[in-house]
Amino acid sequence: MNWIYFVDLFGTAVFAISGVLTAMHKKFDLVGTLIIGFVTAIGGGTLRDILIGRFPVGWLEDRNYFFAILAGYLITYFFEQQIIKLRKSMFLFDTIGIGLFTILGIQIALEQGLSTESCLLMGVISACFGGVIRDVLTNEIPLIFRREIYATACLLGGIVYLLLVEFSTNENLNILVAIATVIIIRYLSIRYKWSLNFNQ
Amino acid sequence: MNWIYFVDLFGTAVFAISGVLTAMHKKFDLVGTLIIGFVTAIGGGTLRDILIGRFPVGWLEDRNYFFAILAGYLITYFFEQQIIKLRKSMFLFDTIGIGLFTILGIQIALEQGLSTESCLLMGVISACFGGVIRDVLTNEIPLIFRREIYATACLLGGIVYLLLVEFSTNENLNILVAIATVIIIRYLSIRYKWSLNFNQ
Amino acid sequence: MNWIYFVDLFGTAVFAISGVLTAMHKKFDLVGTLIIGFVTAIGGGTLRDILIGRFPVGWLEDRNYFFAILAGYLITYFFEQQIIKLRKSMFLFDTIGIGLFTILGIQIALEQGLSTESCLLMGVISACFGGVIRDVLTNEIPLIFRREIYATACLLGGIVYLLLVEFSTNENLNILVAIATVIIIRYLSIRYKWSLNFNQ
Repeated sequence: MNWIYFVDLFGTAVFAISGVLTAMHKKFDLVGTLIIGFVTAIGGGTLRDILIGRFPVGWLEDRNYFFAILAGYLITYFFEQQIIKLRKSMFLFDTIGIGLFTILGIQIALEQGLSTESCLLMGVISACFGGVIRDVLTNEIPLIFRREIYATACLLGGIVYLLLVEFSTNENLNILVAIATVIIIRYLSIRYKWSLNFNQ
Repeated sequence: MNWIYFVDLFGTAVFAISGVLTAMHKKFDLVGTLIIGFVTAIGGGTLRDILIGRFPVGWLEDRNYFFAILAGYLITYFFEQQIIKLRKSMFLFDTIGIGLFTILGIQIALEQGLSTESCLLMGVISACFGGVIRDVLTNEIPLIFRREIYATACLLGGIVYLLLVEFSTNENLNILVAIATVIIIRYLSIRYKWSLNFNQ
Repeated sequence: MNWIYFVDLFGTAVFAISGVLTAMHKKFDLVGTLIIGFVTAIGGGTLRDILIGRFPVGWLEDRNYFFAILAGYLITYFFEQQIIKLRKSMFLFDTIGIGLFTILGIQIALEQGLSTESCLLMGVISACFGGVIRDVLTNEIPLIFRREIYATACLLGGIVYLLLVEFSTNENLNILVAIATVIIIRYLSIRYKWSLNFNQ
């Protein structure tokens, strides 16, 4: 399924851009910025691979991920102002990325024969923990714990995907509907300022 | 050994409660709170499994750990005030938890044929690193590095256990004595304000 | 190659000293200080082993690493003032350490048949991520992202090593030249206040 691989690399580049922007904002140097971009892009999938026991972790054996991250890095340095202006598009790309990363994480966990709830968790970790590691390395409280229903959108998209798989063998369609679910939930949550606070 | 499995799950729930309380205090949302509870409960054992090379890590294949964490999470939300009042009981449960986690970590390391000092270290990591990861994710300096002789109690309990194993085949008794050691050391350290500072 | 093993242990002790000094400065207790020393010394190699999939990670099966770290720990406690006075020597030892760790990391990755860029990355991670983990655990923004061209020196030393391997079979000489490269770059970078900031 070629389009999935392409979107995966594209999502990797978008995640790298988000990491590089954060690190530039924190005045990291050229190498530090690259490391943060790298870790943001591959951190979630790496943690998933480690927990499941898939070694060497995926990106070590496919240099296209290096190129995707390097592309995101260079684009951010040369077109920083334009990227900041394109915030809405970046937000959409980022959401497509987390949607796909969730589904890919679930698929990998399913292949390993893990239980449904473990698969869901692996999907959420794949999508969200790159950002968590980025925030830990830049000494911030991870954003997903406080501000957005980012992880929730992934969780619901993952549930939709697991339900669809039961009823349909059209894998492409299942993935697209699940990603669309993530996009719609995240869009609505920001449009209507949804949040999941415990004392209101 | 059924009672051990039961105490393990119970300790997991207590660790989750401690994580959820920390995250609620930091105003994390519903999902962030759950993640911190989860990570606190399984972080130490996960790091041990990764270092030794046991994959997939334990909780991915036993959904009872999910239920224990979910129970801790729900109890904390619905009975927050009561739990805060029960601080002394919680402290006891937590200490039983770290005692057992230390011994279980050592047992797993012994099965892998690791050296004595590696086994001790795996025990301490199993018991203490869930809290370390919780503190890193909530942007705090890990508590065990500064305030209590938490890790020391685990270390001494582990040494007691390894000595007992040499002389006694009554595994249940060995475990109970080792856990009691952890409880007594931690109790005395707080009662008499012991600490291990380097310049006094 | 005995001298390499010796320098490896020596570098481990020097890394432990750097971690212990940081933790003492932060007023950690005896156990916390030991943990930070330990993690600083073995963190980078551990992460490399995990990413590649070498289990159990190296130091779990060679107690000489424990002794090296313990030696670094005790030396720091008993000779703190002298060590602080020996800053220039410590800086040299530390640089020799990161140089050798880079090369050892690359060798291990080459053995696993990883691609050139993955090998380079494994070298840099081996040398630099102990310090990153130290900084995360002590709640600091990792130093290597901001102040020195630490990672860059490792990267360039690694490239020199990979080029030399193509042309020469004198492994000892290759390693010495690569380490010398790291030392020279780091020395020059501090002598002439080089830095890699993005907007100057």
